Amino acid sequence: MHIRSEPSKKNIIEAHERIEKYIHKTAILSSQLIDRICGANIYFKCENFQKVGAFKFRGASNAVLSLSNTELNAGVATHSSGNHAAALALSGKMNNTPAYIVMPSNAPKIKIEAVKEYGGKITFCEPTLKAREETLENIVRQTGATFIHPYDNYDVIAGQATCGKEILEELENLDYIIAPVGGGGLLSGTALSSFYFGKDTKVIAAEPVGADDAFRSFYGNKIYPSISPKTIADGLLTSLSEKTFQIIKKYVSQIITVTDNEIIYAMRLIWERMKIIVEPSSAVTLAAIIKHKEIFKDKMVAVIISGGNVDLNNLPF
Amino acid sequence: MHIRSEPSKKNIIEAHERIEKYIHKTAILSSQLIDRICGANIYFKCENFQKVGAFKFRGASNAVLSLSNTELNAGVATHSSGNHAAALALSGKMNNTPAYIVMPSNAPKIKIEAVKEYGGKITFCEPTLKAREETLENIVRQTGATFIHPYDNYDVIAGQATCGKEILEELENLDYIIAPVGGGGLLSGTALSSFYFGKDTKVIAAEPVGADDAFRSFYGNKIYPSISPKTIADGLLTSLSEKTFQIIKKYVSQIITVTDNEIIYAMRLIWERMKIIVEPSSAVTLAAIIKHKEIFKDKMVAVIISGGNVDLNNLPF
Repeated sequence: MHIRSEPSKKNIIEAHERIEKYIHKTAILSSQLIDRICGANIYFKCENFQKVGAFKFRGASNAVLSLSNTELNAGVATHSSGNHAAALALSGKMNNTPAYIVMPSNAPKIKIEAVKEYGGKITFCEPTLKAREETLENIVRQTGATFIHPYDNYDVIAGQATCGKEILEELENLDYIIAPVGGGGLLSGTALSSFYFGKDTKVIAAEPVGADDAFRSFYGNKIYPSISPKTIADGLLTSLSEKTFQIIKKYVSQIITVTDNEIIYAMRLIWERMKIIVEPSSAVTLAAIIKHKEIFKDKMVAVIISGGNVDLNNLPF
Repeated sequence: MHIRSEPSKKNIIEAHERIEKYIHKTAILSSQLIDRICGANIYFKCENFQKVGAFKFRGASNAVLSLSNTELNAGVATHSSGNHAAALALSGKMNNTPAYIVMPSNAPKIKIEAVKEYGGKITFCEPTLKAREETLENIVRQTGATFIHPYDNYDVIAGQATCGKEILEELENLDYIIAPVGGGGLLSGTALSSFYFGKDTKVIAAEPVGADDAFRSFYGNKIYPSISPKTIADGLLTSLSEKTFQIIKKYVSQIITVTDNEIIYAMRLIWERMKIIVEPSSAVTLAAIIKHKEIFKDKMVAVIISGGNVDLNNLPF
């Protein structure tokens, strides 16, 4: 059974029940020193500790577990070179369904290895959006696999929403939750969970200046796609979709943009002070707080650490 | 009140009560993938999340909190360029007692900054053991400060023992606890806790081949000091002391040595798979398991991640 419109409270609760035994209920950590630097009480929800090292496993799991037996037999497919590819591959493996992953021929070796390790069936294509989409269409036609979009999919959004639900079950009286925004799957899910499970908890998005399509779309009130985005936050290059944009417009209160230097500074602070490994895309949230301390002064703020997949041979510091 | 002989069960319980509100009760994490690689169930006790980023804060806190008011007024002193210096500085600061830290003039800038940040009063000296000891003696004579040795001190040992106590309170039926060994403070404390609070839990030590004084002393039945040790595990260069050696001889079941390459491999595995930052000295434990899988097959094993203080500009990978 697939969700066909904006996920309801019931949809999110059911998604959580469905995936609960497959996912990690990730830890929420804090650091007195970072609190002192920011002048706020900050709670880091550690999805870098999630399976495959990113929140994406929640959405992919919910999508796979929502398939009928006939659909499961035919498999799932996606085009992605990032965490969604690894998440879908592992969800497929855990549910005995083939996961067909289309990757550009120039994808980083480390990402190809991760998908292989989780048992994904990789098809390489030219590194253009057109080639990706055509290759994916061919695979879907040949295999009958279900295309699981990384975020323009309500089952995926409901799965990502379970992260915010866990935060709100553990922390009462939160003033804010901050999530990074790329395609908007995590952000829209978080915003829905805050609406359903929060007590007046506002959701703020953080985005790199070099890929600020969500910022422009949110304040311009229509989708402006991401054209030649350039940022170290490689998980946030994608554009909002129709499904995520509609939810974000309705439930998100603000989008803050930050520069790559601000992202790298925040990333290093998290590594050095919290002793956890976070990817640049996850550090945009803390960068946003540091940049706008006035908003968060003395507030209770949850920050979603979206993932921890970095190439240790290619660090920005 | 100071502990004057091998810490008793009561001493360790009292130490824990004394420091409980100052320390973090650190998380215990696990990774299915690392379990699969090792063929064992491994529980990582994350003292890298401890204050100052290392277990050393436990022992330093207990030592400082065991001082009389007169002693507190005069302050504490030590010579160290590592985690003990930072731990003693912070414990001093939290208890309003001056902490005099003697550091060699060539100590890494990052370590000097850490001690400064925690409010330690640094005196630099020539980088020889003789200069360190003389400088320290002068300071103690001038100020009346109490010398807190990093490990040859029963209050410190009882403090470090609280880490093993927490592990055994959270995990029943552990077969093994593995701790790294340098001067032996953590190892001797862990061994005592295992004896008092464990149910037949054996304690194994892991040590770099390039600084294997504990290995030689343990099996040679007398203290062989560490002469020109050479290893990437910079927290494990020191030699056992009389106090730690006597406890280790009595309660530790085995010492395993590993090479620097094995340490770096294990360190990288923890960074990449667990998404936590651990220092080389902490990775000797996992390296020992990977090297001797036959010992740990299907066992429940706790591993103490002793610290997470690394220079991100100088990583071994």
